[in-house]
Amino acid sequence: MKKHIYIYSPSGAVRDKAAFKRGVARLKTLGHEVEIDAAALASHQRFAGDDDTRLAAIHRAAASGADVALITRGGYGLTRLLPRINYKALGKAIDKGTQFVGMSDFTALQLAVLARTGKVTWAGPALCEGFGVTDKADEADGHSCGGVKSLGPDEIMEACFDDMITGQGEGAGWRQLREAAPVATTSVAEKSRPPKASDSFTVKHAALWGGNLAVLSSLVGTPFLPQIKGGILFLEDVAEHPYSIERMLTQLLHAGILGAQKAIVLGQFTEYKLVPHDKGFKLQTVVHWLRSQVKIPVLTNLPFGHVPTKVLLPVGAHVELAVDGRDAFLLWGHHH
Amino acid sequence: MKKHIYIYSPSGAVRDKAAFKRGVARLKTLGHEVEIDAAALASHQRFAGDDDTRLAAIHRAAASGADVALITRGGYGLTRLLPRINYKALGKAIDKGTQFVGMSDFTALQLAVLARTGKVTWAGPALCEGFGVTDKADEADGHSCGGVKSLGPDEIMEACFDDMITGQGEGAGWRQLREAAPVATTSVAEKSRPPKASDSFTVKHAALWGGNLAVLSSLVGTPFLPQIKGGILFLEDVAEHPYSIERMLTQLLHAGILGAQKAIVLGQFTEYKLVPHDKGFKLQTVVHWLRSQVKIPVLTNLPFGHVPTKVLLPVGAHVELAVDGRDAFLLWGHHH
Repeated sequence: MKKHIYIYSPSGAVRDKAAFKRGVARLKTLGHEVEIDAAALASHQRFAGDDDTRLAAIHRAAASGADVALITRGGYGLTRLLPRINYKALGKAIDKGTQFVGMSDFTALQLAVLARTGKVTWAGPALCEGFGVTDKADEADGHSCGGVKSLGPDEIMEACFDDMITGQGEGAGWRQLREAAPVATTSVAEKSRPPKASDSFTVKHAALWGGNLAVLSSLVGTPFLPQIKGGILFLEDVAEHPYSIERMLTQLLHAGILGAQKAIVLGQFTEYKLVPHDKGFKLQTVVHWLRSQVKIPVLTNLPFGHVPTKVLLPVGAHVELAVDGRDAFLLWGHHH
Repeated sequence: MKKHIYIYSPSGAVRDKAAFKRGVARLKTLGHEVEIDAAALASHQRFAGDDDTRLAAIHRAAASGADVALITRGGYGLTRLLPRINYKALGKAIDKGTQFVGMSDFTALQLAVLARTGKVTWAGPALCEGFGVTDKADEADGHSCGGVKSLGPDEIMEACFDDMITGQGEGAGWRQLREAAPVATTSVAEKSRPPKASDSFTVKHAALWGGNLAVLSSLVGTPFLPQIKGGILFLEDVAEHPYSIERMLTQLLHAGILGAQKAIVLGQFTEYKLVPHDKGFKLQTVVHWLRSQVKIPVLTNLPFGHVPTKVLLPVGAHVELAVDGRDAFLLWGHHH
């Protein structure tokens, strides 16, 4: 189904112009009409244009009347724009049918929109890393996935994107990590615990929210973090060491945010480097620790994050979470 | 003056045992009685013992009756202990004359103590990096300072430490950076501005608080961040890119913390690496941006941070800030 997709840059400057072009071409190949914002390739220092430029781009995206407003990439730059954004205009655009899609730094805008308007945006790919990956198996920058050289955009991501734009998406399912029982220590007595084959539970009508952990935690204490009770919080991050992930989770814990949710769903945490003096402290240690601090389920392995294979998630929508052993499903039916 | 100094490890495991020994020897050479906590060299994963071990060490330090309770080093580990600390015991120890000294991860404990008890602790050196630096000019790990190979602990730091333990310290003075006027852009109109030779102002009776920016910002929204109005906020950090520094400052700004202070004093931000795609975005850019966001003075170059030459600062004390052009003075007189 042909859709009108508006491409804009609210955060970091597009550096990989080839990926940008491939992404645009791919969306056209999929049959869409692609409109490119005048400042999509602007640059000012590390940003996609100065603050006024990026702010205007966001507002042009809202005024575009497009079916989808898709960011070129993340990076850094949205948090400092948050007080100047016209949330009413974004809310109206969403009401008229524009789906805002992005991730990473875009989490800041998504959460601020949710806090200010209660409207749903989509956690999903950015143009460059999502649709702009190379389709030539022999290119040096082609990424590998599951040992197989990538042959273009990830199929699951594209199928989820198609589900979103056609309004046919009903949810996302995945299999959690197989986990060893945690090693008992004097200081970690798990309240929550890893999934067992016999586990089966459902959480109904809970607000799905979250995104990039570093960006989300940087909004704690500000008016741009939505105050969600009884929600399902999903989190991902890239290039953050497990100790840093733990410190950010600790902030959410001590701020009363984790305890107020019905479930925590951990996505992909990638591209960090353990060091010799970690001596066994690793991401799994943090998951065990997290389970020792909260009574709610902590799920793992949601296919979302800085990875090719990812689902699209409606941030702010009320969803159902169904868990059957290691199998988990987030269901949102027809959200519009 | 001979003092009783208690050495303990509330955060990361001591990895450089030689620095630990040199630090202890140096304090003894200075005439002090050094008492070493039973778990000072403990290790569990990256931590100086598991949570219970480090918590007990903090409480032993509080019960030691020492004149100074000095951490071996920072690292990571205090934030997750904060809900379990006996603040009443720490407050009593401070009342009886124990000065708690440290920095970096220790900022978490200092701010929590201030939030819970209103008591003063000292931002200052840790044993290993402060007193344990090599005194042999030809050692491979000797650090250089101003182009001259270090010959042991920094003299200014040691003089400030001596001022603190003798109660003779009256304050700290330094010279701010010489700054170019910021380049005008459409989005940055400075409210505050760099110091001029003609600037002269004084802020009286303001609570001095702050420390490590990453640790402080990770406490926003939690009960462990003191709610200080009309204070003087000092900040430092290590290995954080300017964009990350800016994002953390943005959190403090949007949370209403920066605007509630009378001055912001930036210490040393070190060991970060700019990248080609920063394209002119640098620490000074962040300082200019910060000045565009707040009306209060933003001072620079406080000799405090992850650097050898640093002053000791009474966190939670009421101080006077006197500025005369680039020259700045923090005055706390006889605080006890």
